[in-house]
Amino acid sequence: MSDDPILDDLRGRIADSPFHSGFGLSVVDAEKGSVRLGWIARREHLNLQGLIHGGLLATLADVAMGLAVRTAIEPGRRHVTIELGVHYLRPATPGNVQAVGRVVRVGTQIAYAEADVRDGGDRLVARGSGTYSVTAPRA
Amino acid sequence: MSDDPILDDLRGRIADSPFHSGFGLSVVDAEKGSVRLGWIARREHLNLQGLIHGGLLATLADVAMGLAVRTAIEPGRRHVTIELGVHYLRPATPGNVQAVGRVVRVGTQIAYAEADVRDGGDRLVARGSGTYSVTAPRA
Amino acid sequence: MSDDPILDDLRGRIADSPFHSGFGLSVVDAEKGSVRLGWIARREHLNLQGLIHGGLLATLADVAMGLAVRTAIEPGRRHVTIELGVHYLRPATPGNVQAVGRVVRVGTQIAYAEADVRDGGDRLVARGSGTYSVTAPRA
Amino acid sequence: MSDDPILDDLRGRIADSPFHSGFGLSVVDAEKGSVRLGWIARREHLNLQGLIHGGLLATLADVAMGLAVRTAIEPGRRHVTIELGVHYLRPATPGNVQAVGRVVRVGTQIAYAEADVRDGGDRLVARGSGTYSVTAPRA
Repeated sequence: MSDDPILDDLRGRIADSPFHSGFGLSVVDAEKGSVRLGWIARREHLNLQGLIHGGLLATLADVAMGLAVRTAIEPGRRHVTIELGVHYLRPATPGNVQAVGRVVRVGTQIAYAEADVRDGGDRLVARGSGTYSVTAPRA
Repeated sequence: MSDDPILDDLRGRIADSPFHSGFGLSVVDAEKGSVRLGWIARREHLNLQGLIHGGLLATLADVAMGLAVRTAIEPGRRHVTIELGVHYLRPATPGNVQAVGRVVRVGTQIAYAEADVRDGGDRLVARGSGTYSVTAPRA
Repeated sequence: MSDDPILDDLRGRIADSPFHSGFGLSVVDAEKGSVRLGWIARREHLNLQGLIHGGLLATLADVAMGLAVRTAIEPGRRHVTIELGVHYLRPATPGNVQAVGRVVRVGTQIAYAEADVRDGGDRLVARGSGTYSVTAPRA
Repeated sequence: MSDDPILDDLRGRIADSPFHSGFGLSVVDAEKGSVRLGWIARREHLNLQGLIHGGLLATLADVAMGLAVRTAIEPGRRHVTIELGVHYLRPATPGNVQAVGRVVRVGTQIAYAEADVRDGGDRLVARGSGTYSVTAPRA
């Protein structure tokens, strides 16, 4: 646990989710409206060309944006991805990958966020955008 | 090996790629311009709500579309994802997932494809779209 | 007026909207979940290359999809575009353009639709996708 | 004419294009990789709710991004929109609208740009993204 309740909440969510914990990502830092994730791309994440598979970069962008939305809505509410877009800008080499998600707009029912994904060479390899539905807690 | 050279080519590519083989997807059938993938979503693919993580559905859509592009271009050429979009239509329950990618347009340098993703209950859970750069073989 | 209440409703909406009536589009036919628009691209709609400007094709796709959503929701509800995507597949030549919008999914708060846009040569020149917020009537 | 060759080139292109000159937009300022457009939304641009039609905001975003790409490529080359995405963040009120397009990445054949669109109340009403094909001059 850190001293930061936002960070603790996000780390707890990741630890509790079978997919997120198995995928191996970590929350590097977080503040209201912005979340930075770290992840290490290994051999099993590479395509035939030895580059990180684009679906995994899309996954990272989605998680970073979704968690950023999480930090910007009331604690009990839920967020669900409605729509995800990723533009691939450069080939992504293995190693330490970082994804930063930022909330651009939170409305009463819809949130919109964007993400930067940087590869092991710290180059911007993808830009993401996502629309999230924000709803009341399930009864 | 099947008797079908398109199917054999795609299956060989998946077997040779560390990511694709580890992800566990299979090419169910393929013809020029269209590819159907099968995949089983297990516990490690689920989020906190017990639903398939959206990033994995995006990955399936991208692979189905990319392989569909593959079947529609000359054998030696390479395809790279430029842009991927996914619309999530329903919560995706675990089990046997299918993704069908279809080429809508192949130009000399750019291809465009779309995908349907159906979950374990055979419901349409996501629609994908993707733009692919098609280039000459690397020397 | 036609004998068709769906068609009449859409034609009335277009006649009442300053933008839509000025833009010159017409509702060719409509049924629940699907709307076909007609429009004539003239000199003032062309770019430097003599092709229809992509923003106008995006506009047609958005209107066709929005009206298709309109036919699939309860009469008093409102729809607003949250997100619009257009893929341009071929250069669009002037003349009679048609756009067909089709609803893929209508939920309680969100609808998703897709569109085909065909140019004066009846070729598929663009594919559209759109996410719409569906809300209760303004009090 | 200004003293700025980038600005003069863009203004000349707009003056020569039937659509752009008729649409009434102006290039407020430009530098390599970034272009700011001004436009006035009048009654004929409004929908039934008295808000600027989303297709026109998409058009502005596309023009701003396309011209930004223009400033970042060699003079003789051509750019064509492959794919356009717009996220609508707030209702857009009439008056002086501004759109800023910025190039994020220019490759040898593909460019990617993003745009902010602000309405008459200077609020961010839409975010745009676009992929452009960059090709050699037509012979």
